[in-house]
Amino acid sequence: MRLSEFVLPTLKETPAEAQIVSHQLMLRAGMIRQESVGIYSWLPLGLRVMKNVEAIIREEQNLAGAQEILMPTIQSADLWRESGRYDDYGKEMLRIEDRHGRDLLYGPTNEEMVTAILRDYIKSYRELPVNLYHIQWKFRDEVRPRFGVMRGREFLMKDAYSFDLDLEGAKKSYDNMFATYLRTFTRMGLKAVPVRADPGAIGGDMSHEFHILTGTGESAIFYDVIYDELTLDVDNPDVEALQSIYAVEEKLHDPVSCPVAGDRLKQARGIEVGHIFYFGTKYSKAMGLVVDGPEGERIIVEMGSYGIGVSRLPAAIIEASHDKNGIIWPDSVAPFAVGLVNLKVADKACVSQCEDIYNRLREAGIDVLYDDRDERPGAKFADMDLIGLPWQLVVGPRELAVDRLELKRRDGGAREELSLESVLAKLTG
Amino acid sequence: MRLSEFVLPTLKETPAEAQIVSHQLMLRAGMIRQESVGIYSWLPLGLRVMKNVEAIIREEQNLAGAQEILMPTIQSADLWRESGRYDDYGKEMLRIEDRHGRDLLYGPTNEEMVTAILRDYIKSYRELPVNLYHIQWKFRDEVRPRFGVMRGREFLMKDAYSFDLDLEGAKKSYDNMFATYLRTFTRMGLKAVPVRADPGAIGGDMSHEFHILTGTGESAIFYDVIYDELTLDVDNPDVEALQSIYAVEEKLHDPVSCPVAGDRLKQARGIEVGHIFYFGTKYSKAMGLVVDGPEGERIIVEMGSYGIGVSRLPAAIIEASHDKNGIIWPDSVAPFAVGLVNLKVADKACVSQCEDIYNRLREAGIDVLYDDRDERPGAKFADMDLIGLPWQLVVGPRELAVDRLELKRRDGGAREELSLESVLAKLTG
Repeated sequence: MRLSEFVLPTLKETPAEAQIVSHQLMLRAGMIRQESVGIYSWLPLGLRVMKNVEAIIREEQNLAGAQEILMPTIQSADLWRESGRYDDYGKEMLRIEDRHGRDLLYGPTNEEMVTAILRDYIKSYRELPVNLYHIQWKFRDEVRPRFGVMRGREFLMKDAYSFDLDLEGAKKSYDNMFATYLRTFTRMGLKAVPVRADPGAIGGDMSHEFHILTGTGESAIFYDVIYDELTLDVDNPDVEALQSIYAVEEKLHDPVSCPVAGDRLKQARGIEVGHIFYFGTKYSKAMGLVVDGPEGERIIVEMGSYGIGVSRLPAAIIEASHDKNGIIWPDSVAPFAVGLVNLKVADKACVSQCEDIYNRLREAGIDVLYDDRDERPGAKFADMDLIGLPWQLVVGPRELAVDRLELKRRDGGAREELSLESVLAKLTG
Repeated sequence: MRLSEFVLPTLKETPAEAQIVSHQLMLRAGMIRQESVGIYSWLPLGLRVMKNVEAIIREEQNLAGAQEILMPTIQSADLWRESGRYDDYGKEMLRIEDRHGRDLLYGPTNEEMVTAILRDYIKSYRELPVNLYHIQWKFRDEVRPRFGVMRGREFLMKDAYSFDLDLEGAKKSYDNMFATYLRTFTRMGLKAVPVRADPGAIGGDMSHEFHILTGTGESAIFYDVIYDELTLDVDNPDVEALQSIYAVEEKLHDPVSCPVAGDRLKQARGIEVGHIFYFGTKYSKAMGLVVDGPEGERIIVEMGSYGIGVSRLPAAIIEASHDKNGIIWPDSVAPFAVGLVNLKVADKACVSQCEDIYNRLREAGIDVLYDDRDERPGAKFADMDLIGLPWQLVVGPRELAVDRLELKRRDGGAREELSLESVLAKLTG
């Protein structure tokens, strides 16, 4: 993609309305635009990141054996009356009346609908277990939306729902998603801490939130310092061992009964990027999701839900990975792999060299953003650092003279002078 | 994917509520489920088709130089007050009030929002032309939703918007999308006829709907029989020549002035799958989307919009491609490339052979649905024909004995007996 043709409205100044660094950088890098309070458009650069995030989530859900469906954004109120949540949900639910006076709502979550779907189609114990997920926009009419897409009103979420015959099966489904979440976040360059969360009326210990530890996180958590020292074996995580490490949300922390010694206990703030939750027969009982067992007995299906905040993740990644000059994208979610910077567009040799490199990079399957604009080098370098592509490849008269390109790694800033062949080998390697 | 684990709730009987064949077959093949009037969930099989359709549209939009963004589903009423359409739009607009009493709406289309986006970011003639598209859910509160996803209320649409400096540029953008649409639909196995549509108050001849001709289409069109005889050169279409062929929507057809001789004129019914439309400065003028020209003059930007009905297309493809036994998917959009049918799951040799073939197919990168269920052969064949995968690969004791597999082409029903190596070569070829 040529930057001269790419819609990338970067800003030099930090917008006054943005309080946290991810919101500031997403606005400055031209990733998002606020359309209404807590409602955003994703501009080309931002959407590329979100799509990469989404692709990793989808791949890992499929590998875990979950099946993708797509439920609509608009739901009928009657469905929520079945579970009793229509009246309970309060003002965060966006309630709508259609032209015929029927009560609808913009789905804040999908437990009811997915239960109704399975109720129609699953009749026998032989058809379980099943795990269904979708990646769809949700709406929660937060009283004070803030921090950009971190706490928006319209947001993209992956929510999966497991259906099992008994608690043992439900625990297996839960642990499968627990491991999948660790892999998913690790692939995005994030270290996510699984934090025990309040299971509410359901009880038990099958409720974990996954937190990215940063000072700007909205949640307070307490955890054993062992998490800071841990190297996760994501291909084969010891789920039981990980779940036994102390890490809890604030309201579950009791200084008196806490099993971790004072010098080993850390307090931190975290951004919640995922939540997995076993809720047993809460919805299946209320809505009649029951299957025939092997002896003809009726079995009320055990359920769990598994959410990931898709549109929140680009912001969470920025909170975890930036410096004073801008964003530092992990390779796996970067909007482009490399930025090609032409330092002198008035120089014909320089242009011709850049065009050649641009074509070679694209032929090699490397996603490249080519800064072919007529701008000062300083402005080009500043924009490249701001938007945070993993690699910058610089071409100017000096580089031409020595037949070497300057390749800079955004993370750390190390520079190398390389031949084009070596650059290609490095970027495809 | 193993069918025993796949959520595929096929129906033997045709649901009474479905009036047209695509709606009947989508319900019978377990592709969709109605959640409210005109609002559907996409089950795993249906979603796979829609994602393939979406991927083709996205590829062709990107190739045409359009840039993908993502605008939200919920819009502010104030934006629509700027263009004057908030009051004009009528009851099809789903109007919403949030918890603070602000007027919102579920976007039925995005001209206003995309104009506001460009107004913020584009200042100079040097930054044009631009074409932005997104693929997002829309809502139109139709008074009588019908025909399943063909005329739903919540529907997925690709809408692109072009921005040019003058009419000549706008015409070029229009023709670019005209050619892109022909390629897009052809890749889906569809023959789409570009039909001149009413440009309304804008006038001119830059308004075309793309129609799939089937008896169940909702629109009446008149066209020169030359379209039936035409072989389209999609890689290099002669846009001017194609636009000069007579094909108009009913309200533009005047038998008296029609230039086509009676025996060459055909009347047909069509399903509208795309609409491209030049509307000049209608929104840019009302909303102040103006750029500086080369001499410092102010230029009001010329705009066009380009829609494709993404969630309608799987239904349109079925209308165009089915027989009495079910759907016949074109290869490019098929949910799986091949169905592997184990005729005898009680036979250990048969199971072992099927497992081996299943693994070989997957290793070769072939998307396979493996019917490993304990069902009668007749039921398995009926389901395979119903869901319409392009190829069926049959394994039973008879096939084992002769060391040959039966490969059936769904379209036409031709059968061949082949070795596994030949099957792999054929399916990857």
